[in-house]
Amino acid sequence: MLIVKKFGGTSVADKERIFNVARRCMEDYKKGNDVVVVLSAMGKQTDVLLAQAKEINPNAQKREIDMLLTTGEQISASLMAIALDSMGVPAISLNAFQVVMHTTAVYGNARLKRIDTERIKNELANKKIVIITGFQGVNQYGDYTTLGRGGSDTTAVALAAVLKADTCEIFTDVDGVFTADPRIVGEAEKLDEITYDEMLELASLGAGVLHNRSVEMAKKFGVQLVVRSSLNQTEGTRVKEDVKMEKMLISGVTGDKNTARIALIGLNDEPGVAFKLFHHLSEHNINADIILQSAGSGGAKDISFTVAEDSVAETVDVLNHHRNESLKCDEIFVEREVAKVSIVGLGMMSNTGVAAKMFEALYEAGINIKSISTSEIRLTVLIEEDFVDKAVQAVHNKFFQKQLN
Amino acid sequence: MLIVKKFGGTSVADKERIFNVARRCMEDYKKGNDVVVVLSAMGKQTDVLLAQAKEINPNAQKREIDMLLTTGEQISASLMAIALDSMGVPAISLNAFQVVMHTTAVYGNARLKRIDTERIKNELANKKIVIITGFQGVNQYGDYTTLGRGGSDTTAVALAAVLKADTCEIFTDVDGVFTADPRIVGEAEKLDEITYDEMLELASLGAGVLHNRSVEMAKKFGVQLVVRSSLNQTEGTRVKEDVKMEKMLISGVTGDKNTARIALIGLNDEPGVAFKLFHHLSEHNINADIILQSAGSGGAKDISFTVAEDSVAETVDVLNHHRNESLKCDEIFVEREVAKVSIVGLGMMSNTGVAAKMFEALYEAGINIKSISTSEIRLTVLIEEDFVDKAVQAVHNKFFQKQLN
Repeated sequence: MLIVKKFGGTSVADKERIFNVARRCMEDYKKGNDVVVVLSAMGKQTDVLLAQAKEINPNAQKREIDMLLTTGEQISASLMAIALDSMGVPAISLNAFQVVMHTTAVYGNARLKRIDTERIKNELANKKIVIITGFQGVNQYGDYTTLGRGGSDTTAVALAAVLKADTCEIFTDVDGVFTADPRIVGEAEKLDEITYDEMLELASLGAGVLHNRSVEMAKKFGVQLVVRSSLNQTEGTRVKEDVKMEKMLISGVTGDKNTARIALIGLNDEPGVAFKLFHHLSEHNINADIILQSAGSGGAKDISFTVAEDSVAETVDVLNHHRNESLKCDEIFVEREVAKVSIVGLGMMSNTGVAAKMFEALYEAGINIKSISTSEIRLTVLIEEDFVDKAVQAVHNKFFQKQLN
Repeated sequence: MLIVKKFGGTSVADKERIFNVARRCMEDYKKGNDVVVVLSAMGKQTDVLLAQAKEINPNAQKREIDMLLTTGEQISASLMAIALDSMGVPAISLNAFQVVMHTTAVYGNARLKRIDTERIKNELANKKIVIITGFQGVNQYGDYTTLGRGGSDTTAVALAAVLKADTCEIFTDVDGVFTADPRIVGEAEKLDEITYDEMLELASLGAGVLHNRSVEMAKKFGVQLVVRSSLNQTEGTRVKEDVKMEKMLISGVTGDKNTARIALIGLNDEPGVAFKLFHHLSEHNINADIILQSAGSGGAKDISFTVAEDSVAETVDVLNHHRNESLKCDEIFVEREVAKVSIVGLGMMSNTGVAAKMFEALYEAGINIKSISTSEIRLTVLIEEDFVDKAVQAVHNKFFQKQLN
């Protein structure tokens, strides 16, 4: 069996944890499996390097930032090979140049295009555990790129896809995917299985377990994903297509505080103004969500949307840049003290009562809804940030306690 | 003009020093020169990484050690590009894979075989300062190698050779090459010029200014080397072939405490025993120096030699491994408290009084000589380690004060 195992920065933060990961890899190896390990940089190393660069130059070239950051995974990968060797397990570390991991050109947010598998397969044939630097790639100019935050998940899934791995295990510090964040909702239950689509909505909504691009890729290539704990041997949650029919209407409730609402008031009501707005944002890789448009006064209109809180500065820059041309408006409001609460579930598609039930839960908890956004398997409301934990708890109670009755 | 500038770890140890180096590179760039910068890892970074690896596994694979250490120069190179950019100077960092720097296979002590110049030339043509990671290369297996301690000097000289640079400046924390270590001998004088051969003897003898392989390479390819200070604008010392005739008999006096003497007592007096001994040592890349052979008692003989102090453990291992076969001997002695004092100079070749003068200086200072070794332009004596500074001072006085009289 070929197993791809991905461990995040926390799991390799120090010598003891490196040995802990090494032991888990050895267990699979000793059973006769081929093992490919994908690692992130140790602990907060990426943040430390980034701070070092910003101190020298707040507008450092993205090309050089990637050159800098890719050292992080190279350090953790080589130390892991050194740890495995000390346990008598042959191992070799490979970086993006050695693999090669081909990506698109864009620095800081590249996408994997192709992975050469020859070197990896040779090393596996030599009975070595192959340790690969996550998060990084090489573009057509022969430069390092990075895949964006959480990109190591994508590296792992992509490797599992091209190597036709039997399973891709994503290790984290929780036991799997839960019906809500167990730190907020004590009664949250671990899911044994979940579909790609549900996982995708949860990942996008800040459930913080899996990087959403990795889930998209897993779905596309049918990679058998498992989310499990690096701290214990619990089975974890399987992410796959053919989940057995669950009785639950929804699979999870999430809260996401990393959200700000931006409103353009009194926007000129010309054709294509919404297109122009979101086109400008997408040019800067800014993801807008929960978009609302309403008629304003005197023939103008108002548009509001949410962005991740760390994109606010760039978003406002973009808006101001175009304010005198394509985006004439009276005012731009930024509201940071908001949060998203979402429910996700395949069951929602066939059950009209779900939205009403969620609103009921929030109403009973005395929480005001600012805006609403839906997809086929997701329902998101925007509320005041202070109430997010209370809202998640209330919504979770409404859906999951009912099931127990 | 094409200038290669090499800065060691101390010169890039923190943000302020990085900017100091960046300014020096900018000065040459603004004058219209093409500038290639070779950097070591920041401060003690290489030692820190090495300690991290040894903590996990004292016998870490050399291949993975190199994988680990090469991150050091990649960090300093990218931060330098980021600093230059903040000053409005276009710059790009390139690692050994991006250049490519081809080396022999051996990890930890590889030699440069070939350097691809296309990428560097393209970036120079784009009017960029090109910053290259010193110390590292890529072998035929596509793995990182390192060139051994001080290898960044070799990287710089090799680049100067293949790029046909007009000059190769090696920056250090002293003003150039001195007639003795100025921290020991207050009257030591800076040399304006020195030949490759003299520099080579000084480098090999622990003068600590230039890596000896870099001097060999500079001589072979006729690279114009300059050793100068990163702290001030002093001219430094030019290392070249056609030095103007100096009146000095010797160009410098050096002391080297990193020396241990190993003696094999009562060695079987068979043909080829010396060959076997030094063959075994060279197989392990152990450099032996000041070799003495004398008749022992009863048809046996004694051989002693010096090695660098950090090679003692490995040397003794090698000797013990062969003691029952090719190297039968009564005893092996290790003496660590010894040091080498050497004088170097082209003038020695044509002047028979030099050795006598050195011995006179040591005799007057009351220092006992344990053994003596000579080359055409070098004379080395082994003395007790405690007396090394006194010896260097005494020998320097004898040669250089006489000249002033």
